[in-house]
Amino acid sequence: MDEAVALLSRTPATLDTLLRGLPEAWTAANEGGDTWSPYDVVGHLIHAERADWVPRAKIILAHGEARAFDPFDRLAQFADSQGKTLSSLLDEFAALRQQSLRDLAAFGITDVDLDRRGRHPAFGAVTLRQLLATWVAHDFDHIMQISRVLARQYSDEVGPWRAYLRIIAGVQG
Amino acid sequence: MDEAVALLSRTPATLDTLLRGLPEAWTAANEGGDTWSPYDVVGHLIHAERADWVPRAKIILAHGEARAFDPFDRLAQFADSQGKTLSSLLDEFAALRQQSLRDLAAFGITDVDLDRRGRHPAFGAVTLRQLLATWVAHDFDHIMQISRVLARQYSDEVGPWRAYLRIIAGVQG
Repeated sequence: MDEAVALLSRTPATLDTLLRGLPEAWTAANEGGDTWSPYDVVGHLIHAERADWVPRAKIILAHGEARAFDPFDRLAQFADSQGKTLSSLLDEFAALRQQSLRDLAAFGITDVDLDRRGRHPAFGAVTLRQLLATWVAHDFDHIMQISRVLARQYSDEVGPWRAYLRIIAGVQG
Repeated sequence: MDEAVALLSRTPATLDTLLRGLPEAWTAANEGGDTWSPYDVVGHLIHAERADWVPRAKIILAHGEARAFDPFDRLAQFADSQGKTLSSLLDEFAALRQQSLRDLAAFGITDVDLDRRGRHPAFGAVTLRQLLATWVAHDFDHIMQISRVLARQYSDEVGPWRAYLRIIAGVQG
């Protein structure tokens, strides 16, 4: 639990260091088709902060398996982020994450609570412990995605080194 | 060129935010077998700073294709990092990166220089522009790797969410 909180508290600073102040040509670029740009990813993390982690933890603690979680909208950021700068999204994410961690602390979650179950709308029974672990892994998933999207902006520029760079070659090493 | 320098200058802070102060159980864990831990990756970035980027740029500027680059030792960190803490490696990397960028500025590289060629020991002619782009992409490649290694420490803990987390499922999205 302490470990998860320590990891979750770092993410806003990591995103800031990766993204704040980069030219829009980098932060708005995606990997083609309907893939996401770093800007889209930050919007998605904001929506998850509002609609996923703490709200689902609350449902588990209040209702257990009796009430399924609300489905999560993976595309909400395309409407929600409209007209906002990346800087303002980074600020918004940092404030929301701080509030999430305050909420989490206020729940006073015990070891017994960590094994309490909730009901996921798609795959059924999950524990609070699994929800918290997923929150952490989800942060890293999207930090990884942002790194990959940024690296791929140089796909052509690297020339023959392409073969050595797993991030560009698309090989998961 | 300015873009590459702006990106390269951020990497020490990104690694710091991701790693400094994390428990060793996280920073020393790898993905199994002879894969690398975050600690190993930082050692590798240090060796690249000493033996790869600036030294190769120097060879291109001084010798062009007449002199091949020295081969790069991908495993040097396993000897070099011995007995060092992760904190000291992060400090060392930050200092070396700063020096690299000072060296790069001192070269006074022009647009014409960016098209100058050197000779890679494995795949032959490469330009200085490609070397610099590869340096940037290589940073992101290893930030991505570190995020993935950290996330995978929760592979079991996430339970059924495993299927949704590309970082753990091993799918490159």
